[in-house]
Amino acid sequence: MQLTGKMPVPLLAFGAHPDDIEFGGGAVIASETRAGRAAHFVVCSRGEAGSFGTPKQRMAEAKKAASLLGATIEFVELDGDSHLEIRAAHAIKLAGIIRRIRPITVLAPSLIENQHPDHWRLGKLVRDATRLARYGGLKELRGSPRHIIDQLFYYAVTAEAEPTDISPVLIDISAPEILATWTAAMAAHCSQVSALNYIELQLARAKLRGLRAGTGHAIALFPSDPLVFDSLSKTLRSARKF
Amino acid sequence: MQLTGKMPVPLLAFGAHPDDIEFGGGAVIASETRAGRAAHFVVCSRGEAGSFGTPKQRMAEAKKAASLLGATIEFVELDGDSHLEIRAAHAIKLAGIIRRIRPITVLAPSLIENQHPDHWRLGKLVRDATRLARYGGLKELRGSPRHIIDQLFYYAVTAEAEPTDISPVLIDISAPEILATWTAAMAAHCSQVSALNYIELQLARAKLRGLRAGTGHAIALFPSDPLVFDSLSKTLRSARKF
Amino acid sequence: MQLTGKMPVPLLAFGAHPDDIEFGGGAVIASETRAGRAAHFVVCSRGEAGSFGTPKQRMAEAKKAASLLGATIEFVELDGDSHLEIRAAHAIKLAGIIRRIRPITVLAPSLIENQHPDHWRLGKLVRDATRLARYGGLKELRGSPRHIIDQLFYYAVTAEAEPTDISPVLIDISAPEILATWTAAMAAHCSQVSALNYIELQLARAKLRGLRAGTGHAIALFPSDPLVFDSLSKTLRSARKF
Amino acid sequence: MQLTGKMPVPLLAFGAHPDDIEFGGGAVIASETRAGRAAHFVVCSRGEAGSFGTPKQRMAEAKKAASLLGATIEFVELDGDSHLEIRAAHAIKLAGIIRRIRPITVLAPSLIENQHPDHWRLGKLVRDATRLARYGGLKELRGSPRHIIDQLFYYAVTAEAEPTDISPVLIDISAPEILATWTAAMAAHCSQVSALNYIELQLARAKLRGLRAGTGHAIALFPSDPLVFDSLSKTLRSARKF
Amino acid sequence: MQLTGKMPVPLLAFGAHPDDIEFGGGAVIASETRAGRAAHFVVCSRGEAGSFGTPKQRMAEAKKAASLLGATIEFVELDGDSHLEIRAAHAIKLAGIIRRIRPITVLAPSLIENQHPDHWRLGKLVRDATRLARYGGLKELRGSPRHIIDQLFYYAVTAEAEPTDISPVLIDISAPEILATWTAAMAAHCSQVSALNYIELQLARAKLRGLRAGTGHAIALFPSDPLVFDSLSKTLRSARKF
Amino acid sequence: MQLTGKMPVPLLAFGAHPDDIEFGGGAVIASETRAGRAAHFVVCSRGEAGSFGTPKQRMAEAKKAASLLGATIEFVELDGDSHLEIRAAHAIKLAGIIRRIRPITVLAPSLIENQHPDHWRLGKLVRDATRLARYGGLKELRGSPRHIIDQLFYYAVTAEAEPTDISPVLIDISAPEILATWTAAMAAHCSQVSALNYIELQLARAKLRGLRAGTGHAIALFPSDPLVFDSLSKTLRSARKF
Repeated sequence: MQLTGKMPVPLLAFGAHPDDIEFGGGAVIASETRAGRAAHFVVCSRGEAGSFGTPKQRMAEAKKAASLLGATIEFVELDGDSHLEIRAAHAIKLAGIIRRIRPITVLAPSLIENQHPDHWRLGKLVRDATRLARYGGLKELRGSPRHIIDQLFYYAVTAEAEPTDISPVLIDISAPEILATWTAAMAAHCSQVSALNYIELQLARAKLRGLRAGTGHAIALFPSDPLVFDSLSKTLRSARKF
Repeated sequence: MQLTGKMPVPLLAFGAHPDDIEFGGGAVIASETRAGRAAHFVVCSRGEAGSFGTPKQRMAEAKKAASLLGATIEFVELDGDSHLEIRAAHAIKLAGIIRRIRPITVLAPSLIENQHPDHWRLGKLVRDATRLARYGGLKELRGSPRHIIDQLFYYAVTAEAEPTDISPVLIDISAPEILATWTAAMAAHCSQVSALNYIELQLARAKLRGLRAGTGHAIALFPSDPLVFDSLSKTLRSARKF
Repeated sequence: MQLTGKMPVPLLAFGAHPDDIEFGGGAVIASETRAGRAAHFVVCSRGEAGSFGTPKQRMAEAKKAASLLGATIEFVELDGDSHLEIRAAHAIKLAGIIRRIRPITVLAPSLIENQHPDHWRLGKLVRDATRLARYGGLKELRGSPRHIIDQLFYYAVTAEAEPTDISPVLIDISAPEILATWTAAMAAHCSQVSALNYIELQLARAKLRGLRAGTGHAIALFPSDPLVFDSLSKTLRSARKF
Repeated sequence: MQLTGKMPVPLLAFGAHPDDIEFGGGAVIASETRAGRAAHFVVCSRGEAGSFGTPKQRMAEAKKAASLLGATIEFVELDGDSHLEIRAAHAIKLAGIIRRIRPITVLAPSLIENQHPDHWRLGKLVRDATRLARYGGLKELRGSPRHIIDQLFYYAVTAEAEPTDISPVLIDISAPEILATWTAAMAAHCSQVSALNYIELQLARAKLRGLRAGTGHAIALFPSDPLVFDSLSKTLRSARKF
Repeated sequence: MQLTGKMPVPLLAFGAHPDDIEFGGGAVIASETRAGRAAHFVVCSRGEAGSFGTPKQRMAEAKKAASLLGATIEFVELDGDSHLEIRAAHAIKLAGIIRRIRPITVLAPSLIENQHPDHWRLGKLVRDATRLARYGGLKELRGSPRHIIDQLFYYAVTAEAEPTDISPVLIDISAPEILATWTAAMAAHCSQVSALNYIELQLARAKLRGLRAGTGHAIALFPSDPLVFDSLSKTLRSARKF
Repeated sequence: MQLTGKMPVPLLAFGAHPDDIEFGGGAVIASETRAGRAAHFVVCSRGEAGSFGTPKQRMAEAKKAASLLGATIEFVELDGDSHLEIRAAHAIKLAGIIRRIRPITVLAPSLIENQHPDHWRLGKLVRDATRLARYGGLKELRGSPRHIIDQLFYYAVTAEAEPTDISPVLIDISAPEILATWTAAMAAHCSQVSALNYIELQLARAKLRGLRAGTGHAIALFPSDPLVFDSLSKTLRSARKF
């Protein structure tokens, strides 16, 4: 499941814990891979500080979930679960990964601080990393060609983590196969979902977003920077139905 | 130049004065009509309170500018220039126009209040009108079939009018023909541009937006509601280059 | 069902249309009346501009819903459905009702403008009315004794109407009887709920709020002014569980 | 004065310097202990970087002030006065204290950054610590049972530190004994109050809050998360009198 | 006390009720007139809806207060106390006054809506009026030469009315004569201050602002638009002392 | 070019990289030194992580640019380009520089995080340093007399870095000599400006600000704390012309 090829991967998602990408944005991944675009996950801890599951179990669950979503996965060790700090060295390490994967789109956890302390710290590290990936003089990354991504989107692991200072864009995930794949990927995190109603919570969030947008289910993503379009016809649908 | 056909028009733009659409969003209109999508303007005063130009001159200038931009145009009288008030009757009248034109996209001036008092009032009236156009029981509109637009975007006539609580989307208007058409449409408002450096100001705004986005020129629009996409690949470019 | 008694009523709720109170805050009403506190509804139109239902039907539905919730109800005519304007005379009329009912707590629709134009206008009118109810010199209200309410809370008819600049307080409505009563009251608006999935939407909102707060279901209210407590022990629970 | 008992303590307050709790929230502590609820202080430096007072003096002043307020106190060394940094190890250490004290309510300095750099850093560390106290797998805290607090409130050491993005709740501290106790506790910090008008400033803040709320004096606290109530009658008073 | 001369008046202050200017910004007026700059008041109601004082009394009190502050005064009737509405005709009438007085600086009540409904409405009318005063084609003002003011500042009648989205500038009013003059001008409103502690409240506000700024007393004003300086040395002092 | 004298220097500007001060605020420096007020630059890296230019080249360019602007310059090593972290030791080191230079006004990069990671980190370090410079007990700074600055202004290296939560003040830099000096100082950074259109971007920003303010060119600065004035006449001009 380790990424080995040399081809650029269109979508690169970072998670602080083995289940964050799946719970916060798994349906978007399912939607992209189903459309034939490759996705790669970078998980930055083994979830060893959680109340449930061993690191070994949690890594296995993450691998299974990534596989269900059609994504490749790798683990990178920063400071460990619940110990993440904002260090320049971490941002540079993540910038090195971005240069290796060469993604078009990057997903990272949102920056709202009133949530798990690892989430927003990783979000800030990824934001800085996407910028450092462009700077030619970083000696740690010498030999690795500069890379400019097209977009950075934040996902919110919980509703509390949704930014209020960025207008969301909604990704329609109403197709039954997408919902089923997403649910399966969340359920793959057995150690977590047996104890709490996380899956129910995420499906409720997505359904409420979908109902509000006049569709079945939807996931809100939060672009770090303004989107650029050549034409208004590229932005046809909007979300207000009530 | 009056709209007479029965075909739905994809793009409907509202302006409070004869030159507002051109100065605030003319380049976007040029871009859309150049791509073959029809546009229609609704101008809600004859500019009679301005310091320069007679109503007759200003209407003629607006017609010429619309023609240069490839758009049809009509004038609707609400309370008159600098006299606009927020009245339910106005919103209903504008809703009637929306039902007649049946647009996919609507453009309206932004809601920031620290600008010409007619601008934000018209923005609020249009926002309400897009909603009222959906309600079946409005007796003033009986006989006119309900219509649901896909999107409402706000444009900012000046930099001061740009909202800070909505993330902008940028429309790339770098093509030389678009810039030339836009400039000509602004210049058509002779009575206004002879006195002040409005054209220079708008081109400087668009150029600065473009430089920041790594392109030539760009116009920021502000969506009233979240955009909905089926796929991340529809939102490929973003604006941060510095 | 008309309020006739002379006793102060602890809870007074204003709605712009016959179903707004029920959909936006019905569960809170059910919870209060179940605890023995009287509630009174003031509905400010007969819903005549909606796509479904006649005014007569809608008034009957509202009366039935209020009855199910254990509340009294009255209708007041301002400008009519979808025609509401912000007029001093309206605020004074509502202030007169407040002086007659003498409530401790007042509920009004939230002030966010990107929703039905009647909702936020009524919210602003009620906000002003609670203030005018205190001023002794208003000649229209001469003879009616001044009244100071204890609190004004805003409710959000839809998720889009939730303010982002006021911290919510959550009312726990998890008791099965409360949920059942609320659902029945919403269902009493047959003309509305047959066409759209409003009940499903509101239950999804309340469930998501509840899950996030570690309880079953909850409704967010938004206090107009800071709450005052004698002791921290009065404010024991908070909402973050994820 | 060191906390030795095994009983949970309802109220736990963190301060970055020996006088922060007293100046920012002392009256609330006085109000709670007067009502029979135990309070404990954790002071995270000895104030050794201040312009006035030796560490020994300042610790003695803090002990005296805590005693006057009816609270127990302990000192914990993090990085030292004016040297505090946001480190995962600090948050975990504070989480350990929370697990030991098992508080219902926690008070911490507010997160606004334009104040003494130790204040907001400690606020963020406490916020993270209240969350980490819930996670079962943290190896540093093995053996210490998980603990979930009911509420986290921020206090503002100065008016500049009051958040503008959280609605305050006001605690009425008008009782003369509370004011006297609070003033005495502030005056116990002789080394600080001889040089500057800190007491006058805090009393002016509390009086202005009280006047605005229609009472004598009040302290604003800022809840980290939404408050949850079973009933509107629990939230009876609000603050607007002007 | 009616303004009769033809000289431009540097400072023009608008108030919704006979005592608003004095309570919200009287000390600034005292400071300016003491420095030899003329000030003129425009009061837009006779305070007839207040709980205390007759219109005749209140006008006499306002005249006396203006005289104490060294300002001239006139009354203009719009819709009457507690009946003010936002009408284009009102803004044009106020624009006419601005053209007649030709002020450099204008003061108006702040735009925050959660206060007396006349306050923010007047603020919005004045804001629009300062703009309309510049437009040459307004037929109601034909014959009156266009006028461009240099600055519009908002004052806050109460602490609740202070904007949070505009950075304040502080005017130092610590000179004993300024404080004495201000206090006398507030006290001139006998009908109001006998009943409530308004003077105490305003002095507490000004003292707290002053203490925070390292001076005696200060008043916060909120500029409508960015201030322009030729040099940093014009902006020497700032307010943070704690 | 190293600062050796003992005289206080009125203006102290901090930059994260050799060209930041020039690009973000060079025209303000030119304006101040031209008026006879000395300025000093502290540059906190040698720009060694950039894509273009060697550290040696970049330091030489910075010295030349400072000289053109009439400023003295020194380099201080913190963590190195793109490696800056928020450490208490850095803030104390910068506080030591502030105590040595004894400035009236300090300039620092803005705190907006969505830009080069060194910019906002340096801004936060400087903000903290201006506070630590006042505290007498810091053992690292023993022997260095406490210093209180009058003002801290943030400058924005790019338009993206402009704060939206602080109202800007504009410095008029329209004088041709100021513009020429600024342009020359930017052009002195040959290694940077040959590759990208930075000068064009900055001039476009300043021109747009100037046009909006009714003058030629202007630079926006963002005061950390409220400005204090003795009189309204000190704040004569404001920026809105459109």
